[in-house]
Amino acid sequence: MIEFRRIDLFTRPFEEDGVGVVAGPGDDCALTSPRPGTLLVSKVDELVEGVHFGPAFRPEEIGHKALAVALSDLGAAGAIPRWFLVALGLPDRIDDRFLARMAKGMAALASRCRVTLIGGNLSRAGELSLAVTTLGEVRPEAALRRSGAEPGDELWITGTLGGAALGLRLLAAGRPRRITPALRAQLTPEPRLAIGAIAGRYARAAIDVSDGLLQDLGHLCDRSGVGARVDAAAIPLSRELLRRAGGDALRLALTGGEDYELLFAVPRAKAASFRRAADRAGVPFTRIGAIEAGGGIRVVGPDGRELPLPARRGWDHWAG
Amino acid sequence: MIEFRRIDLFTRPFEEDGVGVVAGPGDDCALTSPRPGTLLVSKVDELVEGVHFGPAFRPEEIGHKALAVALSDLGAAGAIPRWFLVALGLPDRIDDRFLARMAKGMAALASRCRVTLIGGNLSRAGELSLAVTTLGEVRPEAALRRSGAEPGDELWITGTLGGAALGLRLLAAGRPRRITPALRAQLTPEPRLAIGAIAGRYARAAIDVSDGLLQDLGHLCDRSGVGARVDAAAIPLSRELLRRAGGDALRLALTGGEDYELLFAVPRAKAASFRRAADRAGVPFTRIGAIEAGGGIRVVGPDGRELPLPARRGWDHWAG
Repeated sequence: MIEFRRIDLFTRPFEEDGVGVVAGPGDDCALTSPRPGTLLVSKVDELVEGVHFGPAFRPEEIGHKALAVALSDLGAAGAIPRWFLVALGLPDRIDDRFLARMAKGMAALASRCRVTLIGGNLSRAGELSLAVTTLGEVRPEAALRRSGAEPGDELWITGTLGGAALGLRLLAAGRPRRITPALRAQLTPEPRLAIGAIAGRYARAAIDVSDGLLQDLGHLCDRSGVGARVDAAAIPLSRELLRRAGGDALRLALTGGEDYELLFAVPRAKAASFRRAADRAGVPFTRIGAIEAGGGIRVVGPDGRELPLPARRGWDHWAG
Repeated sequence: MIEFRRIDLFTRPFEEDGVGVVAGPGDDCALTSPRPGTLLVSKVDELVEGVHFGPAFRPEEIGHKALAVALSDLGAAGAIPRWFLVALGLPDRIDDRFLARMAKGMAALASRCRVTLIGGNLSRAGELSLAVTTLGEVRPEAALRRSGAEPGDELWITGTLGGAALGLRLLAAGRPRRITPALRAQLTPEPRLAIGAIAGRYARAAIDVSDGLLQDLGHLCDRSGVGARVDAAAIPLSRELLRRAGGDALRLALTGGEDYELLFAVPRAKAASFRRAADRAGVPFTRIGAIEAGGGIRVVGPDGRELPLPARRGWDHWAG
């Protein structure tokens, strides 16, 4: 049977052993053993050919990114990722070599992040798609949600913004020979798991900004019933973004999307120690504003004056 | 944003409250609280337009079936289903009314099976696809796997076989006005959860026969390191199948696939009480053979002579 041969081909590069795995691929269901006293954290994300990746992506990068985006949200929840399941929609034209390379890219990230493939489904399809469900654990007191931010909390973000959007723009002209940080942000984003796993000690609320900073900050504010001030001059921009996007750099950083960075609302009293923890973890960490009472998001310039908000707040694959 | 409007439209018919749900749709991740001492049971399944359903399916039936097939495996594991996540690939041509009807069909089954939608992802796509991840719980001693069957165990199966394959055949000529049991088996299969949840007390191994009886029995035998004898005359066939498929009925029952029935290997000493429990649960339950030492599956006729096995053991959407 072709299907079983392809399943075997796909699962081969993945490590079988993992924390708490009782039964993995090969049974009707996976059986895993949650650690006592933890909450189960779950998330599903999907990448679809032509929507989330194009012909410029290598198979390894598609496999990597499909898992990375579903892990990123676990980081935002303060969770320790444990297990994942993959539903693959596979067109006939995808050959064995492509499939094996895609699995290899996914397996390398899984190994590095210590998450175990415990189940999957392989289906014939007209277009390539990868739906990844990630499962993790979090102690109840360390779980982070979009709600809970309070006026006066500082806003802190990991990494730099706008890179993934710039990378997408660079790929539109075909795959460049040299892979710059912006291209890496688009092709093989790294989920911020190390800082996510400790953030529950410091932050009151969190979100990953994969839909664009303004849009995701909007979600956090909506769920928390607050507003926010963003200091335009504080937004972390890479040198590559400043050099290549010029006057468009700030807009890409605010609304570009696909930056798998984490945004935290942190009580002022805990900000310094959170920052030190981020430093120890080697994670770039920047204060970009504060939570305010009342609704609405303001982006303010260095002179304190409010900047006009872009018409589109984030990346929207429906709007194109 | 169109995406968020459509997410709202899709999630509306689902009940929000469920056992152990701490945070559901609307946060980066779902948070749920596993019952102490249980194993987590997880499964992903996917339906793809043109492969698993065609234009004869109503939207409600697509929604129902996508959840049903992913719940069926939880039954086979002896689990109590709790929660599920959905990754929807949605072509632009799918209008709001279609989306709402699909959600309605899925929500009705979810409500009946007491599983709660806790997360999802909605992506633009060229073809309609629904990847459903189901999560459940099982006490370790009640968990059923494909392995564990022993020579001498009796083989018992729920319901009747071949109906879904007949239903598919009937749909090929367009949707009939009257929905017969065979059509229902194809369009809106019912996961066997009630018997699954008690099977751990009686059975040694289990599998759902969605890929066809012979193929899935083969998996169970492979994983258990045993063989099996199937009594052809004992295979439960519906009157509709006998009437409409005639001489092809047995072949459809053995290899047709998509019958979401559960197959159990049961120690002889526990068979009578398992049967009584199935009776009490109102589930048709039939002994169709026995586990044998050594590999291989034999299908024997009423005279004890071995019948030739069909060339194709099961339903394979790769082979077409």
